[in-house]
Amino acid sequence: MTDRFLDRIDGPDDLKALSRAEVEQVAQEARDTIISVITQRGGHLASNLGVVELTLGIHRVFNSPTDRIIWDTTNQLYTHKLVTGRRDEFKDIRLEGGLSGFGEPMESPHDVLVAGHAGTGLSVAHGIAESIANRGTDAWTVCVVGDGALTSGSSLEALNNLVHRNPERLIVVLNDNGMSISENIGFLTNWRRKLISHPEYQAVIERMRALSKRVPTGEAIYRLVKRLGGGIEGFILPTVMWTEMGFHYLGPVDGHDIKQLEETLEQAKVTLGRVPLVHVVTHKGHGYKPAEDDPVKFHQPSSPLGAGSGAPTYSAVFSKTIRRIMQEDSKVVGISAAMLEGTGLAEVQQEFPDRVFDVGIAEQHAVSMAAGMATDGMHPFVSIYSTFMQRAFDQVVHDVCLPNLPVTLIADRAGIVGEDGKTHHGAFDISYLRVLPNAVVAAPMDENDLQHLIYTAYRHPGPFAIRIARGAAAGAELDDELQELPVGKGIVMREGRDVTLFVLGKPGTAAMQASDRLAELGIACGVVNALFVKPLDVDLLLDAARNTGRIVTIEENVLAGGFGSAVLEALSDAGVEGVTVRRIGMPDSFVEHGTAADQRRQLQLDTDGIVQMVLEMFPQQQEAVV
Amino acid sequence: MTDRFLDRIDGPDDLKALSRAEVEQVAQEARDTIISVITQRGGHLASNLGVVELTLGIHRVFNSPTDRIIWDTTNQLYTHKLVTGRRDEFKDIRLEGGLSGFGEPMESPHDVLVAGHAGTGLSVAHGIAESIANRGTDAWTVCVVGDGALTSGSSLEALNNLVHRNPERLIVVLNDNGMSISENIGFLTNWRRKLISHPEYQAVIERMRALSKRVPTGEAIYRLVKRLGGGIEGFILPTVMWTEMGFHYLGPVDGHDIKQLEETLEQAKVTLGRVPLVHVVTHKGHGYKPAEDDPVKFHQPSSPLGAGSGAPTYSAVFSKTIRRIMQEDSKVVGISAAMLEGTGLAEVQQEFPDRVFDVGIAEQHAVSMAAGMATDGMHPFVSIYSTFMQRAFDQVVHDVCLPNLPVTLIADRAGIVGEDGKTHHGAFDISYLRVLPNAVVAAPMDENDLQHLIYTAYRHPGPFAIRIARGAAAGAELDDELQELPVGKGIVMREGRDVTLFVLGKPGTAAMQASDRLAELGIACGVVNALFVKPLDVDLLLDAARNTGRIVTIEENVLAGGFGSAVLEALSDAGVEGVTVRRIGMPDSFVEHGTAADQRRQLQLDTDGIVQMVLEMFPQQQEAVV
Repeated sequence: MTDRFLDRIDGPDDLKALSRAEVEQVAQEARDTIISVITQRGGHLASNLGVVELTLGIHRVFNSPTDRIIWDTTNQLYTHKLVTGRRDEFKDIRLEGGLSGFGEPMESPHDVLVAGHAGTGLSVAHGIAESIANRGTDAWTVCVVGDGALTSGSSLEALNNLVHRNPERLIVVLNDNGMSISENIGFLTNWRRKLISHPEYQAVIERMRALSKRVPTGEAIYRLVKRLGGGIEGFILPTVMWTEMGFHYLGPVDGHDIKQLEETLEQAKVTLGRVPLVHVVTHKGHGYKPAEDDPVKFHQPSSPLGAGSGAPTYSAVFSKTIRRIMQEDSKVVGISAAMLEGTGLAEVQQEFPDRVFDVGIAEQHAVSMAAGMATDGMHPFVSIYSTFMQRAFDQVVHDVCLPNLPVTLIADRAGIVGEDGKTHHGAFDISYLRVLPNAVVAAPMDENDLQHLIYTAYRHPGPFAIRIARGAAAGAELDDELQELPVGKGIVMREGRDVTLFVLGKPGTAAMQASDRLAELGIACGVVNALFVKPLDVDLLLDAARNTGRIVTIEENVLAGGFGSAVLEALSDAGVEGVTVRRIGMPDSFVEHGTAADQRRQLQLDTDGIVQMVLEMFPQQQEAVV
Repeated sequence: MTDRFLDRIDGPDDLKALSRAEVEQVAQEARDTIISVITQRGGHLASNLGVVELTLGIHRVFNSPTDRIIWDTTNQLYTHKLVTGRRDEFKDIRLEGGLSGFGEPMESPHDVLVAGHAGTGLSVAHGIAESIANRGTDAWTVCVVGDGALTSGSSLEALNNLVHRNPERLIVVLNDNGMSISENIGFLTNWRRKLISHPEYQAVIERMRALSKRVPTGEAIYRLVKRLGGGIEGFILPTVMWTEMGFHYLGPVDGHDIKQLEETLEQAKVTLGRVPLVHVVTHKGHGYKPAEDDPVKFHQPSSPLGAGSGAPTYSAVFSKTIRRIMQEDSKVVGISAAMLEGTGLAEVQQEFPDRVFDVGIAEQHAVSMAAGMATDGMHPFVSIYSTFMQRAFDQVVHDVCLPNLPVTLIADRAGIVGEDGKTHHGAFDISYLRVLPNAVVAAPMDENDLQHLIYTAYRHPGPFAIRIARGAAAGAELDDELQELPVGKGIVMREGRDVTLFVLGKPGTAAMQASDRLAELGIACGVVNALFVKPLDVDLLLDAARNTGRIVTIEENVLAGGFGSAVLEALSDAGVEGVTVRRIGMPDSFVEHGTAADQRRQLQLDTDGIVQMVLEMFPQQQEAVV
């Protein structure tokens, strides 16, 4: 036994039994635990430190899991996990077999959904509230949504529907830390900026100061304003906006004052007729100086831009190459959706502030805006993480591919991503992009491929998608000159008469190593760096089929509809029969968190796995090895 | 030569040369032309009649194609087509080889994009305006957006970005006809409703009446209010809202008064510092009494719910079956995204007003809301047109399939849709749905399959997608009892030793007929109604492969990644070699408008096409036929 209060908390009821001073102690202990584990292990640090008190307050006022607490997104559940029976497992968070870094209903009934994509919480909460009403029970639904998530189209659709339906016993908690991952965009921000300079609101503030001893919220504001030292600017009352929209506005509340939080949440519970919106002001990284000072860096300290094998990341090579092209051609622009840092566009923006656009968490807008630019003669490069590009699927189909416009899409973090796990793998982009007419879909085996593919996309007169992996590239040397590659042509890396590895993208390195190992076992294993999945290099494929009769396709995408599937289609269309094809790729399940290396090992996406797959095609050699 | 002014208009410049009285005459002539052609031919009637004057006004004030006019969506371009050099081709609109029913840059430089999905216009316009600014030219970008399109998340993302960037020389025209295709949803609507009852706004109105002789906008309002006879309610000044958002609000303007429209658009051109938003009030179906009285029906008079072969539509059978299930189980609900009528949910709503939800043009919200309901024990059926379900792709992945929730998705209008053409075919849903872990993906060959599939989905504990075709079903008799079908099991419709037609969904009828014809030619052609693409009935497939050695897959989806692709994957995974597979489906291009029958004929998706494909596998018989 320790002396920590936290060690006595096995569920929300234990929290309710504590005095407020004791809860504040638990907050400190939770914060210490998070800092100590995450600074070692990596994870979402700043956002979690911002919601320690908010989490405890919500769990004291509501009765999870009867009441449903939804977080948008669930990367901020660390304190929640610590107080809902998962304290002892917390040290292994994000490791294989350990706790997920996101919500996980399989871990606990207190987790409603695995929400890793921002902007779905309000819709999910609305559905739950309607369902609870339908059941005729009196449980609460609480949705905590960040100001960043609020700029996504899906959140805005939900706001519209919430004020339309006015579901009962639903409370929205706006977690306003004044900063999403990148810049905050939009009319909500505008509104707040405008309101603070309005004389009437200044007057309101004065009145609230005077009232501060009488009403709890007023006192909270006053102390908040004093503590943050920044004057009243930045924290003033967007009451009018929310009221006009149709919500019952409560706040702003100091998100680090548990007493105020609890009182305001209780107030929200007795609100009638309109959905209450509790505006909570929190401080990203609260209580940990390095994270407070640089919350972008400490959003997720294990970011691959910081780590690596010495080789640059694919994102960094994209950044360098696009900057080079932009220096030569003023018609080229970069677009990001709240991921300027992660995609490498932040550095490009420093050189070209007018030609790099960050649209916020608004992938749909990013793609359609790019389409508009392309109709006017520009060539936009839109870099979005593969998993988030799913949000813009229709815009890619309807606004880019249908009119055949020269927009280049960079699907960053494509394939295996490691610790972020199943919500973040870029598992589907080959399948959903290669089916689109007019699209070119490519993936580089190494960073030199990448720079040439980017240049090739720039020269191409239609839609062009390049998927790149998370983390360090292969370590290849970069040619000095950018080259325009022939679209739809792969590269024979190695000839081999027994079997051909037909590989797309990052697994190319493992394929080359596998070929070396197989040569030692007497198997002459050719390797083709396909580079393109659409159009596929059918000539190379048919050569390989004829020469070796055995093909292994390798990709970091689900097998269904992926690169290997395209190979099967091409062989069938060419009337080639009697060729043995084996496919390595991601499975028909959502791949759980763990290190990327472990995930690749389990999925046969590493050297050993490829060797094993080939050996199964050669029973004699396999026996010799065993 | 005729006496019509319209016949002298070969481009916007000719319009500019007319007097206002002459333009009003052109408006009448355009309206008459549209009514006469579309009531014969089918098409979007009510929306086009609503924007006759607005179109003419815009073309007189701006210089298309130098100035870029974007319509969200482009189903309202009929007048625009009439005055931009396509008057004589207008009579063949929506026919094969005739004018498209939507925008089409290949027809005219005056058409910016083929926009058939609502909610992309503001983003495209933003991109164009940024591009024009980058080029340093002084062209205008004008985006006409409907009040319905405004409720889509993509539009709301764009509003956020517009007020953030404040691009110059961009004008938003809000075409407010007070009614999107179904119900209008959300805070914009709320706001207007609230504002009209506010004493301050009543005062404003009085002031405006007094001013009406002096300022053009005031006069317009006054006359509008008088003419519409409905008092001032419904048409009053959401000025505050737009101003607060960060736009420069102008209006409201009577959208059928060309003089007022022109004056206000000119005013918008001299607005500085903020994006001007011109609020135009129009009247759907204006000038054609039947359409004015019932704009929902006259939204698109050729709607397949009205036409048909005597057999019910698939949508109607969905409607009937889901109602039956809802009568038995209060946990089942229906959700639509602004398509209550088209999906058949309107009738269900009459019986269950509390259990059918129309969320507006907000597909993302529809799907995530369903996910939330499913976490709480309900079983939602979400019916969305296949082409629009692309909007919710990420929500299907992340909110439904990842947590493996019992949500049933009905992909309506899947496959070939006919006259609406390339923006509206449901060409991709098999490809993008079958790759998702946990998903079941099915398609009925006839309406009896459909009712059982719906019941099977209802009984299934995870995600289930059913794609249904547009228009009349096969005419099969409906079993009295709903049956739970074994998931992943196909049905052998006919045995045959020479070749097997492996068919998914609607083409099943043509496959059966083709089998009859082939029997006459001495080819014993088996037919399998696959029913499921995921999980695929591998046993049936392997049997067919062993027994006949020849398989033809048939589907109304692109071949890439589709049903036939799944068949190839399954054969390869089973190690089956030496089987000849041919695939019939939609091509790697966007299929142009025409009748559905013509489209099927061209794509070999009819009886003749299937017979032809099989004959090519049997050169001897083929010779005999020729």
